[in-house]
Amino acid sequence: MKIGIYGLGRFGSFWASTLSRVAEVQAYSRSSSAPPGVRTVSEEELCRSDLLFLCNSISSVGEVCGRIAPLLKEGIIVADTCSVKVHPMKAMISRLPANIRILGTHPMFGPDSGRNGVAGLPIAVCPGRIDQESEESVLAIFEALGLRIETLTADEHDREAAYSQGITHFIGRTLDLLKLQPSRISTTGYEDLLDIVQQTCNDKWQLFVDLQKYNPYTEEMRKKLHSSIEEMLVKLDSIESIGE
Amino acid sequence: MKIGIYGLGRFGSFWASTLSRVAEVQAYSRSSSAPPGVRTVSEEELCRSDLLFLCNSISSVGEVCGRIAPLLKEGIIVADTCSVKVHPMKAMISRLPANIRILGTHPMFGPDSGRNGVAGLPIAVCPGRIDQESEESVLAIFEALGLRIETLTADEHDREAAYSQGITHFIGRTLDLLKLQPSRISTTGYEDLLDIVQQTCNDKWQLFVDLQKYNPYTEEMRKKLHSSIEEMLVKLDSIESIGE
Repeated sequence: MKIGIYGLGRFGSFWASTLSRVAEVQAYSRSSSAPPGVRTVSEEELCRSDLLFLCNSISSVGEVCGRIAPLLKEGIIVADTCSVKVHPMKAMISRLPANIRILGTHPMFGPDSGRNGVAGLPIAVCPGRIDQESEESVLAIFEALGLRIETLTADEHDREAAYSQGITHFIGRTLDLLKLQPSRISTTGYEDLLDIVQQTCNDKWQLFVDLQKYNPYTEEMRKKLHSSIEEMLVKLDSIESIGE
Repeated sequence: MKIGIYGLGRFGSFWASTLSRVAEVQAYSRSSSAPPGVRTVSEEELCRSDLLFLCNSISSVGEVCGRIAPLLKEGIIVADTCSVKVHPMKAMISRLPANIRILGTHPMFGPDSGRNGVAGLPIAVCPGRIDQESEESVLAIFEALGLRIETLTADEHDREAAYSQGITHFIGRTLDLLKLQPSRISTTGYEDLLDIVQQTCNDKWQLFVDLQKYNPYTEEMRKKLHSSIEEMLVKLDSIESIGE
């Protein structure tokens, strides 16, 4: 099975490199070159892969599907890798012809959390418009990488991701505004917090915005987080201050 | 050197047990019994130790010092272990007679973060009213445990702790209000966040309140955190929503 990677940003390049350990991988990017072990090809050649992973930004999935729709070979499996699922899967289903198979995936890791290998890490899989045999051929690749496959609907994914990945990125980006520093008297909890800031801020700002804007459940999550903080502030203010 | 522990709460019991690996330890508590290897004694006998660690709550340091002041043997070293330093050190210095040596300490760990041993973990030390020889005798005990000793003033400690331990506990307690759940599609960052919630909420509510109220720098920290969150919410709201 020949795997194609569309887009060689921070995640695409990492994903291409990871997949090249278990399959033949070719990639297309407007600006970046392929990592070692991955062949750079034209957009046309990429669209003749057997399985094509879209590794572009969430906000550009619709546009990219429009561009590649006329180039895709019949029966190809197109799988996005976005951190939200409802929006890109709708875009793929509406923009790609009926003879194209569609699968939603979300590798729950990246170049930071996967730097010591991806075995044992989870990947979310949301069946879109695909027959069982084709889906299994993709899952076999994930199994070869040792990934833990979690199958769920796009809606279930987004609801759960808003309160896990979404909240983590929101907190990481917010704490980054405070310019927290390493401390010689840090607790292990604080060191974990600094790790979260660093990991979330290593990703592109665009990914953060897309996570917050394209997931239908993140607005509710942010509102709940905001009111929890205000509840806690009020609670502390209601306790009498210590006179020095 | 005979070490006494005043108070056998969650931290006191852990600290008594840890110290008993390198010294003779006796403890006094109104309600709890001593862990294995530690002898339970009366308040009077405890006050005849060579070095006495106060392991009661921040808010009760003044009261406890008032109680034990007449019982303490001359020359004893009294060291608090509070998570803030300016307030308890003022209380000790004002409440304990001039012939009592005073040292502020803050072990930057507890039963959770120290469950696999304390070697390599930091302990903050704030010299109060103590001669060099006596201070060195205490530091020798910390060195025997493999602790990393960080000497700083009480004010430096509180400023730095507000933006490390203080912010970590505030975030952990706030997220606890959201009742976050483990997720089958969690990222490693989210797992770190859940660990922070669990670790901070394992400590007593009183410790959280005392950390926030007795440290002169935490109010400013909470205000800055609050405005960072609002800044981020406004930033996200200003980005056009995705029409579904």
